[in-house]
Amino acid sequence: MPYINIKITDENVTKEQKRQLIIGATQLLVDVLDKNPKTTHVVIEEISIDNWGVDSKQYSNSEKFKL
Amino acid sequence: MPYINIKITDENVTKEQKRQLIIGATQLLVDVLDKNPKTTHVVIEEISIDNWGVDSKQYSNSEKFKL
Amino acid sequence: MPYINIKITDENVTKEQKRQLIIGATQLLVDVLDKNPKTTHVVIEEISIDNWGVDSKQYSNSEKFKL
Amino acid sequence: MPYINIKITDENVTKEQKRQLIIGATQLLVDVLDKNPKTTHVVIEEISIDNWGVDSKQYSNSEKFKL
Amino acid sequence: MPYINIKITDENVTKEQKRQLIIGATQLLVDVLDKNPKTTHVVIEEISIDNWGVDSKQYSNSEKFKL
Amino acid sequence: MPYINIKITDENVTKEQKRQLIIGATQLLVDVLDKNPKTTHVVIEEISIDNWGVDSKQYSNSEKFKL
Repeated sequence: MPYINIKITDENVTKEQKRQLIIGATQLLVDVLDKNPKTTHVVIEEISIDNWGVDSKQYSNSEKFKL
Repeated sequence: MPYINIKITDENVTKEQKRQLIIGATQLLVDVLDKNPKTTHVVIEEISIDNWGVDSKQYSNSEKFKL
Repeated sequence: MPYINIKITDENVTKEQKRQLIIGATQLLVDVLDKNPKTTHVVIEEISIDNWGVDSKQYSNSEKFKL
Repeated sequence: MPYINIKITDENVTKEQKRQLIIGATQLLVDVLDKNPKTTHVVIEEISIDNWGVDSKQYSNSEKFKL
Repeated sequence: MPYINIKITDENVTKEQKRQLIIGATQLLVDVLDKNPKTTHVVIEEISIDNWGVDSKQYSNSEKFKL
Repeated sequence: MPYINIKITDENVTKEQKRQLIIGATQLLVDVLDKNPKTTHVVIEEISIDNWGVDSKQYSNSEKFKL
């Protein structure tokens, strides 16, 4: 505890970027709520661009918006 | 907002079917709750048939039920 | 299966509106993917307006956008 | 997109602390992945201390660990 | 890790029952996958019976099925 | 209902181990809460070891802890 789940589109996120997300999210919970990093979990889920929609538009079909 | 997460078994769902799920789910939130489609997100997650169970049975081991 | 999770802000959604969301989401999975309604679950989660943010803004602090 | 879900125990988290979580999580996705804040959603869920367990121990029954 | 999320309807589940769910779910991950209980988290979420639907029926409106 | 979601790292979990997780999680809900196994769903999600962090450390970069 806490548990932070980050869902993003699957677009070549690097291992190093994931490492930075893990460090940053953990630090955020330490800074704001004084949580214990040892029990703070971060789980990143990468979603295919066919499987994400905003404004009724499938992300893979859209050129008009940046997620 | 809203955020709609649809979990289904991974069985050759086509890009066009996913598009229809995104459109339909967004429209549902517009129709019932007058939500703004521009901030309505739909995320579809496809789960391996080994990883889904109902009634204690792994879906990949079952011939008796249709999900 | 399928499992549909709908997260919305907690703003006096009525029991009848929830019923319509359940019916509509189930029908969507039947129509698009020929899923079995008997095993289709819909779970609606209402989130306090202090607990939802878009564009770095807490929804309860914002007058500028409609979710 | 992205969608960030933060689950924490329900222990008098203030509206201001939630605001800081929303700002910090959004900024993290901007900094690391250059995501668009306008479509970045943060949802905070507060879980009763009876309902969270680590190491087989219910948090409300435990004095030995800090979450 | 692992992270186990249990969603049930909100129907007077006692603190002791929740404790048993936490113990049982943790033990399951130890037994089957030799996971470390110290990093195994269990989160129980109780959902209003108006907010859960199966087979297009709102649970609070149904007398025909037992969840 | 109930719905049990188990997230674990993706480390060669076998089909048989998944079957045991499904059976055990279903039985747990039957034993503790007298739930109906026919409507009890178990979904297992395997997360890449680059995508899971505890204590600010990416699991794939760590030799110090066992999840």
